[in-house]
Amino acid sequence: MFGKGVFWLKARCVVVDSSQSPYSRLKPVPIESVKLKDDFWAPRVKTLVKVTLPTQYELLEETGRLDNFRRAAGKVRTDFKGFFFNDSDVYKWVEAASYVLAFNRDSRIEKMVNSVIEEISDAQDDDGYLNTYFVFERKAERWTNLRDMHELYCAGHLIQAAIAHHRATGERMFLDVAVKFARHITGVFGPGKMLGVPGHPEIEMALVELYRVTHLEAFLNLARFFIDNRGCGLVGGSVELIDHRPFRELEEIVGHAVRSIYLNCGAADVYMETGDETLLRALKRLWVNMTRCKMYVTGGLGSRYVGEAFGENYELPNRRAYAETCAAVANVMWNWRMLLATGDAEYADVMELSLYNGALAGIGLDGKSYFYINPLADRGRHRRQRWFECACCPPNIARLIASVPGYFYSTSREGVWVHLYASNDALIELNGRHVRLVQETNYPWSGHVEVTVYPEGLSEFSIFLRIPGWSRDAVVALNGKPVNGKPEPAHYLELRRRWEEGDVISVDMEMGVDVLKSHPHVLENRCRVALKRGPLVYCVEQTDNPGHDVWDLMLSPDSSFKVEYKPDLLGGVVLIHCGGSAADTSVWTGRLYLRVEDCVMNLKPTRFTAIPYYAWANREPGPMTVWIPMLDTGLRNR
Amino acid sequence: MFGKGVFWLKARCVVVDSSQSPYSRLKPVPIESVKLKDDFWAPRVKTLVKVTLPTQYELLEETGRLDNFRRAAGKVRTDFKGFFFNDSDVYKWVEAASYVLAFNRDSRIEKMVNSVIEEISDAQDDDGYLNTYFVFERKAERWTNLRDMHELYCAGHLIQAAIAHHRATGERMFLDVAVKFARHITGVFGPGKMLGVPGHPEIEMALVELYRVTHLEAFLNLARFFIDNRGCGLVGGSVELIDHRPFRELEEIVGHAVRSIYLNCGAADVYMETGDETLLRALKRLWVNMTRCKMYVTGGLGSRYVGEAFGENYELPNRRAYAETCAAVANVMWNWRMLLATGDAEYADVMELSLYNGALAGIGLDGKSYFYINPLADRGRHRRQRWFECACCPPNIARLIASVPGYFYSTSREGVWVHLYASNDALIELNGRHVRLVQETNYPWSGHVEVTVYPEGLSEFSIFLRIPGWSRDAVVALNGKPVNGKPEPAHYLELRRRWEEGDVISVDMEMGVDVLKSHPHVLENRCRVALKRGPLVYCVEQTDNPGHDVWDLMLSPDSSFKVEYKPDLLGGVVLIHCGGSAADTSVWTGRLYLRVEDCVMNLKPTRFTAIPYYAWANREPGPMTVWIPMLDTGLRNR
Repeated sequence: MFGKGVFWLKARCVVVDSSQSPYSRLKPVPIESVKLKDDFWAPRVKTLVKVTLPTQYELLEETGRLDNFRRAAGKVRTDFKGFFFNDSDVYKWVEAASYVLAFNRDSRIEKMVNSVIEEISDAQDDDGYLNTYFVFERKAERWTNLRDMHELYCAGHLIQAAIAHHRATGERMFLDVAVKFARHITGVFGPGKMLGVPGHPEIEMALVELYRVTHLEAFLNLARFFIDNRGCGLVGGSVELIDHRPFRELEEIVGHAVRSIYLNCGAADVYMETGDETLLRALKRLWVNMTRCKMYVTGGLGSRYVGEAFGENYELPNRRAYAETCAAVANVMWNWRMLLATGDAEYADVMELSLYNGALAGIGLDGKSYFYINPLADRGRHRRQRWFECACCPPNIARLIASVPGYFYSTSREGVWVHLYASNDALIELNGRHVRLVQETNYPWSGHVEVTVYPEGLSEFSIFLRIPGWSRDAVVALNGKPVNGKPEPAHYLELRRRWEEGDVISVDMEMGVDVLKSHPHVLENRCRVALKRGPLVYCVEQTDNPGHDVWDLMLSPDSSFKVEYKPDLLGGVVLIHCGGSAADTSVWTGRLYLRVEDCVMNLKPTRFTAIPYYAWANREPGPMTVWIPMLDTGLRNR
Repeated sequence: MFGKGVFWLKARCVVVDSSQSPYSRLKPVPIESVKLKDDFWAPRVKTLVKVTLPTQYELLEETGRLDNFRRAAGKVRTDFKGFFFNDSDVYKWVEAASYVLAFNRDSRIEKMVNSVIEEISDAQDDDGYLNTYFVFERKAERWTNLRDMHELYCAGHLIQAAIAHHRATGERMFLDVAVKFARHITGVFGPGKMLGVPGHPEIEMALVELYRVTHLEAFLNLARFFIDNRGCGLVGGSVELIDHRPFRELEEIVGHAVRSIYLNCGAADVYMETGDETLLRALKRLWVNMTRCKMYVTGGLGSRYVGEAFGENYELPNRRAYAETCAAVANVMWNWRMLLATGDAEYADVMELSLYNGALAGIGLDGKSYFYINPLADRGRHRRQRWFECACCPPNIARLIASVPGYFYSTSREGVWVHLYASNDALIELNGRHVRLVQETNYPWSGHVEVTVYPEGLSEFSIFLRIPGWSRDAVVALNGKPVNGKPEPAHYLELRRRWEEGDVISVDMEMGVDVLKSHPHVLENRCRVALKRGPLVYCVEQTDNPGHDVWDLMLSPDSSFKVEYKPDLLGGVVLIHCGGSAADTSVWTGRLYLRVEDCVMNLKPTRFTAIPYYAWANREPGPMTVWIPMLDTGLRNR
């Protein structure tokens, strides 16, 4: 199956290379080691290659983002175009395209990548500095406004792109550009040099990753420096920029959601290299606050339009949710690092949740339309766009999807960890040898998974199967016989044995429809429930439910649910058919407030249909809601 | 009672002088004609004189707002301080103080006013231009950025202040400054001159009022010009600035709430002078959209932080309500104009609602602390401030309170109109003679009002009594005998007769506790109700309800209410004691989402107490909510 000259075994294109990190429990498995063979992710990756990356490349050109590099290199005479941080979109696109090259040397993509890298490289200054906004007349302004001007943010994305390209292709040219710039930066910032931190975190994780590639400690030290010096008012001391308090003293997750989570990613990376427990403690505290008080049921983050920021605890409006696509992507990235660091399944749960819902909703099924903002309820005005003036989200979701195969497995000294489920064929390096795992499943539509093990000469080792937190009941069998030990949701089940060629592990996760409520202080969700099945959050969309405004539907507390797989709908989805009623709101016509006795509404029994949230807004516009009204049954008089 | 040398009869200090307006049904009654003798407004006006105006004066000085005028006059050498529109705060303060001078020649206030007016006057250019930001090096930038720089907005407030001062004192000096500036403006803008409209409407109503004072048609014409040219993209064409569509074609109330409503005020004023029915039709359309789809139950307007703007229909979050104090003040102003223009009681209802709730909450009981933003639910972090960098709200609520007596009555050819209720003694000019009305009531705590009529030689005329929309049942009697005709809520009841000295009209409005629901598409209010009694919206505040978090309280659908007047609490309020229960939320500790079957909560019967919304946040911080959970009873299976 894996022919000779297989490229992917050499490259080791991982997203976070914790292989040598002394304080990381898990080691990643390269993207190219996992061949997706499923009907969920594989088609998405195909669309990414065929549609997303080429159209984004055209947009980088059309919007002047590539011209900005040519301008900086003196090749064209033109004004700088767009926002001062537009370089970062180019870098994120290169990162996404590089991940693709790790498993698919698509010549069209390769050609685009090479030409973009050449433009980037040509724009670099002799001293290593590289930012197309701060050239010519603005050269003197370099590093003068770290709070607002995103130079370090752009540098971080440059570094991440260069590492991805190097890991995917083995080439060094772009990596050399990044290293040269990073050396320039370490020459500028640090103890005894310029004191500063970035207004928009991002470079921290990039520098740690560059340390992992180069083993140059200066990069790790500078990443730590940027985290250690946060909270001293260097970028204004605001809560929005998470500069109000030293990182280790943070109690509540606050501020700009993407900045906050990128910072946490960097801190997690620094922890994995240094073992600084004060960082891990702060990270765990922030994670608990976020997941218990500030995260949408979709894994979306950041409820406020103002400052694209986290709100107060339980401040999670649906219609005015901000839930930036980038923040959901960041949520995947942070939880992946926490998972690597600890091996705790709760991080895998949040990673999976954000991936399948909050992040995936950010891109249309066509692969070329995007949400920046992801409401959980809408009247039909909110539609995906082909691009944004501030276009951080499109290439961010692209790099996430391109790297999805890299999130499926990890290894530890004990063995192989299975985090995500989808049909795939993976060849995983373990203790210098290889284990081949072949997953067969219809996940996320079915909770039945079969993993066939080919130990390839390895003797005893463990396979850690993730039992998702959403599963009520899971049964794990080996070659048809239930294994010892009760699989516990939100934990990994360790199966340790001398594996034999063709051993089949089956996992059966009960995938019923979960009817969820949220904390009663989440004001908009009072007397409402959300439907979830497996990792997928559902919503009701108008187009599936003619006859009644979907905002007027109510779920019956004793509804039975019928699930139905529709291969031709929305790329293939399982629908949930529900029993409930529709309220006749005619008493409210032309009225906003009425006395309670004057607004009795008739209910008409009806059935309605829910679709996965990620798939909404791909058809004609109309009302949508994740949280569906239901009579409040969760109360008991004492 | 009204001694010799009574000052107030000469001044005629009205807020909107529609006396000569050909298309105004009602004519206003001067502020000084109405002597408040009640326990609600009179103490507030007293606090305004003793605390609010002096402390605001000190803040105008402390923050450099007065120095900006001295700087412009060349008296001090200093940088311009604060925002470029800070002059407007000074003008609004002068307007507020002038209204006070109309009925109370407090020497301390008079001295302050005179000194401020002198500073303003000294800062005026020889050509009439007056704005302390655009002086010296910025002189060349005058009128170059109408969208952002608020020159016309500041000019409007200058004009309104000058008119108020002239009407209150009879003096001309300040009015001359305003006229000179207004002449300068009419020289700059208009057909064949500069084409432009203000980014922030305000000058429109000011110019119409100046036309009413001076009878110079150029002012009216320019006001109309600014309205006619709106929607042509002169200030960018944005929805936020209501420049996306010509005024007469607006269907939905959108954009920055204060700008939108100030614009409507100006359009209503132009209508009253010109009879342009296309304006009135647009105004009525916008009013219907606003009151049926976009107004908080408190009369607050503008639900979005972003752009301080109206949201979509039914987008009325409570915790993240913006509901700027200025917008509620503007709501009073607009409805007052609509009421004058039409005599329709529905406008008086909204005016009263905004006045007693949305606007009044903007100032603390101490008279020196302010809300800019007025949420309808809070966890205790939102507190009134002594001032704001952008300090539009404090002097705006000050000028509203100072002018409250002017909103009580109007006249028409037919007679006298009674809009608001509170104990007062009013001498009202009618057809060249005077009617004295003496109101005695405990309104808003009681719905019983007695009006004693002293016709002072007048023969037959009508008295129009407002029967508020909130009253379920009202009984009106004359000298103890019920009058003919059923008083209809949200209408005026006309009593026409030959009045005799000492005739007593009694109005008994049933003032029960109304339990209100909102349109089911207002997401946060699902399964919640608001309590209202008479014109007052209530809320539950933590400090009155120890033992349970007020966000965990539920109102019983069959609750009886006990009302209790507490003279020593919050300046004297009627409390509403409710029956209900408190939910034990311990199952939710550390959880954000749970399956519906895992989160059953115990309810413990409890009673709790609500206070008027305007009085919240005057004691120790804690949770508050206007919308109280209640099991959904308003549903009936068909």
